[in-house]
Amino acid sequence: MTIERRLFLRKAAAALAASPWLAGAAEDKATPVTVTHDMSAMPAHWTGKEQIGMLLYPGFTALDFVGPQYMFAGLMGATVHHFAKTMASVPSDTHLSISPTTTLAQCPAELDILFVPGGGEGTLAALRDEELLRFVAQRGASAKWVTSVCTGSLVLGAAGLLKGYKATSHWVARPLLTDVGAIPAEARVVQDRNRITGAGVSAGLDLGLRMVAMLRDQPYAETVQLLAEYAPEPPFNAGSPRTAPPAVKAMVDDMFKGFMAQGHSALARGEPTKDSTS
Amino acid sequence: MTIERRLFLRKAAAALAASPWLAGAAEDKATPVTVTHDMSAMPAHWTGKEQIGMLLYPGFTALDFVGPQYMFAGLMGATVHHFAKTMASVPSDTHLSISPTTTLAQCPAELDILFVPGGGEGTLAALRDEELLRFVAQRGASAKWVTSVCTGSLVLGAAGLLKGYKATSHWVARPLLTDVGAIPAEARVVQDRNRITGAGVSAGLDLGLRMVAMLRDQPYAETVQLLAEYAPEPPFNAGSPRTAPPAVKAMVDDMFKGFMAQGHSALARGEPTKDSTS
Repeated sequence: MTIERRLFLRKAAAALAASPWLAGAAEDKATPVTVTHDMSAMPAHWTGKEQIGMLLYPGFTALDFVGPQYMFAGLMGATVHHFAKTMASVPSDTHLSISPTTTLAQCPAELDILFVPGGGEGTLAALRDEELLRFVAQRGASAKWVTSVCTGSLVLGAAGLLKGYKATSHWVARPLLTDVGAIPAEARVVQDRNRITGAGVSAGLDLGLRMVAMLRDQPYAETVQLLAEYAPEPPFNAGSPRTAPPAVKAMVDDMFKGFMAQGHSALARGEPTKDSTS
Repeated sequence: MTIERRLFLRKAAAALAASPWLAGAAEDKATPVTVTHDMSAMPAHWTGKEQIGMLLYPGFTALDFVGPQYMFAGLMGATVHHFAKTMASVPSDTHLSISPTTTLAQCPAELDILFVPGGGEGTLAALRDEELLRFVAQRGASAKWVTSVCTGSLVLGAAGLLKGYKATSHWVARPLLTDVGAIPAEARVVQDRNRITGAGVSAGLDLGLRMVAMLRDQPYAETVQLLAEYAPEPPFNAGSPRTAPPAVKAMVDDMFKGFMAQGHSALARGEPTKDSTS
């Protein structure tokens, strides 16, 4: 279940009219909220017109992408684009294929949000893809918000978008951020000016929900959180390298030694060469 | 990032050989684990051969599907099928389209796991789709594990698979479970015999990870959890109807009054008529 806009627009007003928190929410907003008993009443700032561009590339991690996509798609009035080099469906690293809605060439020139998911070997290939990096650099230069989850931050970095910015990544890959001049920060979601990067994979839910609160308001984000029934109960306490059993952490470190070596070498190639045609 | 099987198989052995927890894990297992310094050593029970069938239908919620898919895809040796009526990509309720890997007709007859995601209006249509319900009933009758997330449990119920079973669903839709003879239970993940149902949307991550632990062992599931960096930090405490601000809960209840009415009427139609050809 998600926000079904038609339902939402039709149904929200009654509850809104009776919502004590709206006045409170309004106080924190530039946009004033008028709560009336007119059943069509709706806070103006709850509907936006964001253009959101989410990058698909072969070998991306589907959960990196779909966590934020759920949250962004709940932004009333926003348009969410899933873009890739071609319109062919793009296979993830778990062999789940998502269909693009547009191509790099057709993606809106001015994005409110540029989002890049992470992955493993597919992300290493993206770090060596001049055409892709030029596109990310170009859209990232004008996007209001430049965002990523997991190793997607390495793609932003390889495009030259994180130089001098605090950023995070999947915990395994975080040391690679220094290769692109970023300042690695250890947090679930890291914001530095208009760069917002998330930690590994599942951090996309937290990143997406924070952005919904930022782009609308807290009550709106709480509504999306309740629709997602996002009250997580991980069965184990192994989700962070600080809490995982040492042998589990050691195994994962070992699994990704090859990834780290290839990551350092890919990032040593430097930023994409400027191309006035892009 | 996810378990990259090639990497994992190549890299895990060294860490495994040095893993104190394996002995401990072995004690809890029927399958004995031999830890040697042979670099090809790997606990036998870490590789399975499950056939996992995950249903795609128009209007499903992509996050319901992709959370468990990430976890299931991490099961070494398992084959994960994404099946739908046809091979055309299937649009979710957030307009994210996923390509099936097979059709209902081609889906393996004997599944280890049958999984059904939820949705909103698309799920209401599925509850009235005789062909789909017959298929779910037929595969569910022989599957080792019959599972769902969110309103996917209503589809299992409409197929007659939850009669007399404790089950859960999205909190909004949970009361509909009595319409199919299930016993609504309030928990993140509910297991009753071989039926395992999850709460709304994001509960799929918890359901998937629990199943990984069940099908492999805890250290294996902890490895998957660490790869997913699943140490969630929801920015607000609104993910459950028990903790959300009352006005937020009231608004969501109001948004889905139409869904509940249509759900009751769809489920009043009873189970699909048996069809020996399916």
